Amino acid sequence: MAGSTLGNIFKISTWGESHGKALGVVIDGCPAGLSLSEADIQPYLDRRKPGQSRYTTPRKEDDEIEILSGVFDGKTTGTPISMILYNTSQHSGDYSEIASYYRPGHADYTFDKKYGFRDYRGGGRSSGRETAARVAAGAVAIKILKELGISFTTYTRSIGDIEISYDNFDENEIMNNMLYMPDKQAADNAGRYIEEISKDHDSIGGVIECKVSGAPAGIGDPVFEKLDANLAKALMSIGAVKGVEIGDGISVSRKKGSDNNDGFILCENNPDNNNSTSDNYNSSSIIKSSNHAGGILGGISDGSDILVRASFKATPSILKEQTTVNKNNEEINISIKGRHDPVIVPRAVVVVEAMTAITLIRRNIT
Amino acid sequence: MAGSTLGNIFKISTWGESHGKALGVVIDGCPAGLSLSEADIQPYLDRRKPGQSRYTTPRKEDDEIEILSGVFDGKTTGTPISMILYNTSQHSGDYSEIASYYRPGHADYTFDKKYGFRDYRGGGRSSGRETAARVAAGAVAIKILKELGISFTTYTRSIGDIEISYDNFDENEIMNNMLYMPDKQAADNAGRYIEEISKDHDSIGGVIECKVSGAPAGIGDPVFEKLDANLAKALMSIGAVKGVEIGDGISVSRKKGSDNNDGFILCENNPDNNNSTSDNYNSSSIIKSSNHAGGILGGISDGSDILVRASFKATPSILKEQTTVNKNNEEINISIKGRHDPVIVPRAVVVVEAMTAITLIRRNIT
Amino acid sequence: MAGSTLGNIFKISTWGESHGKALGVVIDGCPAGLSLSEADIQPYLDRRKPGQSRYTTPRKEDDEIEILSGVFDGKTTGTPISMILYNTSQHSGDYSEIASYYRPGHADYTFDKKYGFRDYRGGGRSSGRETAARVAAGAVAIKILKELGISFTTYTRSIGDIEISYDNFDENEIMNNMLYMPDKQAADNAGRYIEEISKDHDSIGGVIECKVSGAPAGIGDPVFEKLDANLAKALMSIGAVKGVEIGDGISVSRKKGSDNNDGFILCENNPDNNNSTSDNYNSSSIIKSSNHAGGILGGISDGSDILVRASFKATPSILKEQTTVNKNNEEINISIKGRHDPVIVPRAVVVVEAMTAITLIRRNIT
Amino acid sequence: MAGSTLGNIFKISTWGESHGKALGVVIDGCPAGLSLSEADIQPYLDRRKPGQSRYTTPRKEDDEIEILSGVFDGKTTGTPISMILYNTSQHSGDYSEIASYYRPGHADYTFDKKYGFRDYRGGGRSSGRETAARVAAGAVAIKILKELGISFTTYTRSIGDIEISYDNFDENEIMNNMLYMPDKQAADNAGRYIEEISKDHDSIGGVIECKVSGAPAGIGDPVFEKLDANLAKALMSIGAVKGVEIGDGISVSRKKGSDNNDGFILCENNPDNNNSTSDNYNSSSIIKSSNHAGGILGGISDGSDILVRASFKATPSILKEQTTVNKNNEEINISIKGRHDPVIVPRAVVVVEAMTAITLIRRNIT
Repeated sequence: MAGSTLGNIFKISTWGESHGKALGVVIDGCPAGLSLSEADIQPYLDRRKPGQSRYTTPRKEDDEIEILSGVFDGKTTGTPISMILYNTSQHSGDYSEIASYYRPGHADYTFDKKYGFRDYRGGGRSSGRETAARVAAGAVAIKILKELGISFTTYTRSIGDIEISYDNFDENEIMNNMLYMPDKQAADNAGRYIEEISKDHDSIGGVIECKVSGAPAGIGDPVFEKLDANLAKALMSIGAVKGVEIGDGISVSRKKGSDNNDGFILCENNPDNNNSTSDNYNSSSIIKSSNHAGGILGGISDGSDILVRASFKATPSILKEQTTVNKNNEEINISIKGRHDPVIVPRAVVVVEAMTAITLIRRNIT
Repeated sequence: MAGSTLGNIFKISTWGESHGKALGVVIDGCPAGLSLSEADIQPYLDRRKPGQSRYTTPRKEDDEIEILSGVFDGKTTGTPISMILYNTSQHSGDYSEIASYYRPGHADYTFDKKYGFRDYRGGGRSSGRETAARVAAGAVAIKILKELGISFTTYTRSIGDIEISYDNFDENEIMNNMLYMPDKQAADNAGRYIEEISKDHDSIGGVIECKVSGAPAGIGDPVFEKLDANLAKALMSIGAVKGVEIGDGISVSRKKGSDNNDGFILCENNPDNNNSTSDNYNSSSIIKSSNHAGGILGGISDGSDILVRASFKATPSILKEQTTVNKNNEEINISIKGRHDPVIVPRAVVVVEAMTAITLIRRNIT
Repeated sequence: MAGSTLGNIFKISTWGESHGKALGVVIDGCPAGLSLSEADIQPYLDRRKPGQSRYTTPRKEDDEIEILSGVFDGKTTGTPISMILYNTSQHSGDYSEIASYYRPGHADYTFDKKYGFRDYRGGGRSSGRETAARVAAGAVAIKILKELGISFTTYTRSIGDIEISYDNFDENEIMNNMLYMPDKQAADNAGRYIEEISKDHDSIGGVIECKVSGAPAGIGDPVFEKLDANLAKALMSIGAVKGVEIGDGISVSRKKGSDNNDGFILCENNPDNNNSTSDNYNSSSIIKSSNHAGGILGGISDGSDILVRASFKATPSILKEQTTVNKNNEEINISIKGRHDPVIVPRAVVVVEAMTAITLIRRNIT
Repeated sequence: MAGSTLGNIFKISTWGESHGKALGVVIDGCPAGLSLSEADIQPYLDRRKPGQSRYTTPRKEDDEIEILSGVFDGKTTGTPISMILYNTSQHSGDYSEIASYYRPGHADYTFDKKYGFRDYRGGGRSSGRETAARVAAGAVAIKILKELGISFTTYTRSIGDIEISYDNFDENEIMNNMLYMPDKQAADNAGRYIEEISKDHDSIGGVIECKVSGAPAGIGDPVFEKLDANLAKALMSIGAVKGVEIGDGISVSRKKGSDNNDGFILCENNPDNNNSTSDNYNSSSIIKSSNHAGGILGGISDGSDILVRASFKATPSILKEQTTVNKNNEEINISIKGRHDPVIVPRAVVVVEAMTAITLIRRNIT
């Protein structure tokens, strides 16, 4: 059954394997008249590119995006936008060994069980490289949303036990360090920690947080198509994610109602606040006095900032020895060579942003 | 846009408000030939019924399910199964006050912003009562899965800070205490804690865990329709859930690859193990030596137990004073009267089980 | 797989068998704020009711519609509208014989092959009675469209060889005769013809035409979701339909391009014409000088009247002797007793109207 | 809203404009393990290629298909298959004039009304060239179905008034003449007729028929997802189609029940017949004694040949003078130059076959 298509108004279909000829995405349902060129997309792809820092794999991927359809005279036409990335620097030879066993923590085993065989070159369709197509689609979604006054701040919240301090939060720092952390000191500490982990031939997980500002109240539908439900699906669909949280997230389980509820208050003359108008309750603005809910009440955006968080597991490909079973049905010890990120989190920051943006418009823009 | 329909092979559409005439669900795509009657459904509804213990609201709801179509001579026909629950014991008068203000933590404000007005009687469509229809559909899903050898163990893992001890885990205890906890001592402690909270006119959150045993490898599709992605959506669509985890969940962010990866080992002569056959790698069985992944690799079930977890916030309706804004655009202090659960978690256990079951078959059975 | 759900913005799910307890429909995605009560729906159901004339079956069906959810204070709330019709006058005993053989021209054989058995009472889910739920949903769709200035004229175009004359076309006559023909003379002739057919224990087919006025240009999407494609699906999904046409329909196969193309002309000062504004080409209005296309160009409405046509086969249940095979695997001759319409067409007029209306808004209203 | 995606099990998404860089299709949900290469696809594309005969446009299109993903070691992997056709021989200059007016019978006007502007080069997305992507996807569908014993016979039934005689029906003749007619004499006559029409600077319509043999009973779902409903949608979605028929089609409106019903009979020892097994009614086979129904009863295939028919209008682009309105809002007379087929029907034969095949598996294979 088809699994690579998402959304119904802004619908994306991705395709391509890590070591095939190319990969890409078709966006169907993008509004007509949006100014769009490759220059709008490429910077987002560059954010997930490897080879940018000493914390990410030194592989070179060109990842140069090309728009094949749906744009005419520099503007979207309302018809499908097809985008392609050619795989120029993959060397299938690097990965031949993994054909002979199941890598722990990867999809090798389950693909084999489901399909009978697998494209074993670099993980094939289950490779993290698949997310490049999501980022290309996300860049279009982000551009549409920007025109509606909606913006994104996405960053690494923690790597291993090293977490940012919100007292040190500096939005400008995010693009300044290789880990996309909004706290220079945390970034420095995390950088040193990753080096240690690498020397130990191991890898480490982390948490990415995304804040959406400027979204109006009313996005999302009751019951099964709640905005938070679709955000959870979108983020959990990213390869290494094992937990998704909205607002205060899992900590709400330990909190009392009196602590967790966000009261409503009046906020006169607050032009910057996007929940400042109330059609029903007169002219003064109603806002929440806190945002434990993360901007979503009853599955519908409430006008406050939308806050989501995804927990990523450590890169499963490690040089450190592991046990598995090979083709001859023997238990073996393996050590996975090749150029693998000791931490996937920094490169995934833009993927989280892309998936959040795609979710906000996949059902709801007109 | 439609939001009350879920799935495409086993598709459910729910309807109904807390204080309308009735509520119900239409299941389209249930396989033909399944033996089915109201007696298969009612016990599940009884598990979410209020008025069963001193920890849940003393309201009486009959919640007697009636099958209106899709069953002939005691068996499903393959055509839509319509089920209805009449609202017999609701008193709209109890809720008239809430028409005049926005209850903190509820969907009153967002429904008004989205639709222009709302059915304010008991929360209308956003009431927790909506989940009764999910449970009815879930009971059918669970019955289908049971025939395929798939079973569920669902329980309260924690209430506030009081968590079960896996050393004391006793599956038989789950149905023995009013909190559905598999640890008698934790249940006793939690019971006392809830009484304190109640006396303080407050409420508390908690965590529900669901373990699926017997699911074969191969359920779920790559990329956007990963099994864990659909489970996350299904659980996050339950009213009070703010966090969803698979396997080790958010704790993976702090773990190293060498700790988090589940190695593969051979398991000869393990007839009980449902990942005991490997068509590709000879006749001996391959299993994982641990299950940090929670039974899902690359979005596809791997034959191990599937483990999901949802974090619930505290009931937002509390007697304790809160601030909000009323129809006259005045900030007011309110105290929400009426019969409200101090903790929603016990009644939600069966809802988590229902949504997990519906997700397992919504795309994948044939 | 689910088959009883249609649409994605205005989504309907129907359920129920001919001789079950009830049948109904859930509409999900109806806009909030629409004034709605049973009185808006009932007249449409009455148009498909049997027992109204000597040309339709003398059975009595109450078909009294009840709204169970989604309406509050007389207005739709934006949440699912559930509607139910109880089956009060069905007598299962009447149909017991058909359990023993396959009726020619019915779905008995194919349901058995697909599902392994069938609800044989009056055709079960494959009964024409299923369309009552479509009509209830259609009545809501028609009401929404009416508020947007879109109206429907639907009528019997022909019965057997007896066709209306467009020279005699009288819209007011449609509701005046039992056959819903807009030509009194044709209706009289057809009435006599049906009586003859009935005496001969036979049945006859016919054609229904639906004209939609006031639809703006721009409805429908390119490629697979063309408006005419969705209309074709909607009409072909009505039980007895074997052909669907748009505009000049199958006759276009015999026509030259110069005869079939509709030229564009200017139409100044035509306020009644709904394609009177051109944002692109200045202020004067552009219209088509003819409407062979039936109001649809490239799958998108062009502002002219939309014209669709469906050809219905004769009622397959006839008293006249037919051959079939029975449960003992014997070829037998049968004569189907019971109260069956000698022509299904008049009762199907409102079904065609309902399906056309549902199609116009199923993807496109906001 | 998205319109270029079709199906849910075998799902296709097409993209590309007539004069863009390329066009293509992504197939998601193709079963794993199917042997597949470009050589399986190219012959189908060649059937819709222009420049093959004196009856079709002398343009040269290479239309060389390339598979970019989803195939590994010569077999499908179960992941998306992306296929691309580069537009190598288009000359945008040829089409610059049509930017200045609305061509009658084309989608120029409606695209402008819907999207605000259009890619006017050769019709852009609304060009018949879009169907090349459908044919590529159809070739895969046909290959899958062939392995299940299902085959297609598709041909031109009529051009203008010149219709094949079923007495002369010769399946081998179909590929022998440029018009794909199974009757040499009709093909000769039609060829001469087209030459006349061409000399007169005009164009002509026609009818295509598709017969599916070997399909088992049970394909299709009740109510809205009937097989005939989906076939109608699929065929009506092809640009120039204005009428779709199943089996006896619109002629059923003139027939009596006793003439139109297909009786059931026993057929012992008929190994070639694909409705030869009856699980319910003993071991002997039940077949229909005739096939007015076109192989579909109650929306579900009945094991007989499935017969569908589509009526195509004449090519709207003609050299003969027509009236339209230009950008300066003036009524003008135009004569559309360029290389246009005087009849679109022969090139559309393979498109009808492709859409029929895609429909048969879009919901139903496993």
